Amino acid sequence: MSKVFFSVSMSLDGYMVPPGMDLAHAGDPSYLDWGAQWGKLQSWIFPQKFFRERLKLGEGGETGRDNEVAEGTFLRTGVSIMGKRMFDLGERMWPEEAPFHTPVYVLTKTVREPWVRPGGSTFYFVNDGIESALRQARAAANGKDIRIAGGAHVIQQYLNAGLVDEINVAVSPVVFGGGSRLFEETDRKLQLEIIEAIPSPRVTHLRYAVRRA
Amino acid sequence: MSKVFFSVSMSLDGYMVPPGMDLAHAGDPSYLDWGAQWGKLQSWIFPQKFFRERLKLGEGGETGRDNEVAEGTFLRTGVSIMGKRMFDLGERMWPEEAPFHTPVYVLTKTVREPWVRPGGSTFYFVNDGIESALRQARAAANGKDIRIAGGAHVIQQYLNAGLVDEINVAVSPVVFGGGSRLFEETDRKLQLEIIEAIPSPRVTHLRYAVRRA
Repeated sequence: MSKVFFSVSMSLDGYMVPPGMDLAHAGDPSYLDWGAQWGKLQSWIFPQKFFRERLKLGEGGETGRDNEVAEGTFLRTGVSIMGKRMFDLGERMWPEEAPFHTPVYVLTKTVREPWVRPGGSTFYFVNDGIESALRQARAAANGKDIRIAGGAHVIQQYLNAGLVDEINVAVSPVVFGGGSRLFEETDRKLQLEIIEAIPSPRVTHLRYAVRRA
Repeated sequence: MSKVFFSVSMSLDGYMVPPGMDLAHAGDPSYLDWGAQWGKLQSWIFPQKFFRERLKLGEGGETGRDNEVAEGTFLRTGVSIMGKRMFDLGERMWPEEAPFHTPVYVLTKTVREPWVRPGGSTFYFVNDGIESALRQARAAANGKDIRIAGGAHVIQQYLNAGLVDEINVAVSPVVFGGGSRLFEETDRKLQLEIIEAIPSPRVTHLRYAVRRA
């Protein structure tokens, strides 16, 4: 059966998004310096061969453990689920060929027809909650895994509902001092088991299984 | 010159202390289940040979990377600095032979003569701030390093004052959902560089150098 997982980069002080990175300032990355902060958080992925090829940034790139992790996350993902704010921001910022290449279920109150992008990303708008979105995602996963793409609030909802099988966090050597925390109000009943931790000079990849009660 | 570092265990959601673990409930570890939560946070260290020997818990124990980390932290430490709340709690909970075996400088408003414990832990009470405590600690460090023992608020003060050279965090596979955050209001200007990340089946040790601006 498809696993439900998330895979995000997190600052050492626990943030997934820096201060100022919101819809109102999507076009102004100098606001609170959010563009540079976001860049630091994600900087481990930019030089990776897999990432450069997917985004057509050119030949070459690193081929070490960071590259394996980035590629592995992409290859296992059959479908993604995201929240409204992440989608709204992405709609402004993704290239025309949105970087998912799978069905994406968007949790929103907006009623909207599916939005088909070139390259295989089709966004479906789900109005009846996280469990419904997960059911629809399972039906579309085609034997692959289901990625809860974000944002932080959506990840927390799935975690606290006991619906996540696996946590993947890339801890970046950066401190934000504010923004959106990945684990803001996480249920302490969550039972974790280390799958592996992968060190690299750029970032530390942490993987946990969530044990069902 | 002596390095200034801290070395603490942190839950995946960023807490150093679980909810309910405070002076009022020091004698009641069942309050909000803090005793068990604290035990989970620290559980990686209990089976280590070094820890068992230091606390006279008996022969044997693990001798892998976790043991090296625990022993290394102890051996490099020439002197410790801690806050009043950590001391007050410790005064209630440490065995007679307090587990430092070095001078300890306590940041407090209380005026008090040094408190000498068997085994080499002597507590000095500093009333004039973090920089004074650090100066006194440097003079006493005897070529070894200076550990900011805690709590979280004291660590943040030293971090934000630019006085910490090295961050050591053992990320435990546990989620608290509340308590005292290690990085509550950390200055985003802090520049980190990964020294190493040490995976083990029990915990992930993260080490960073703090670069001076």
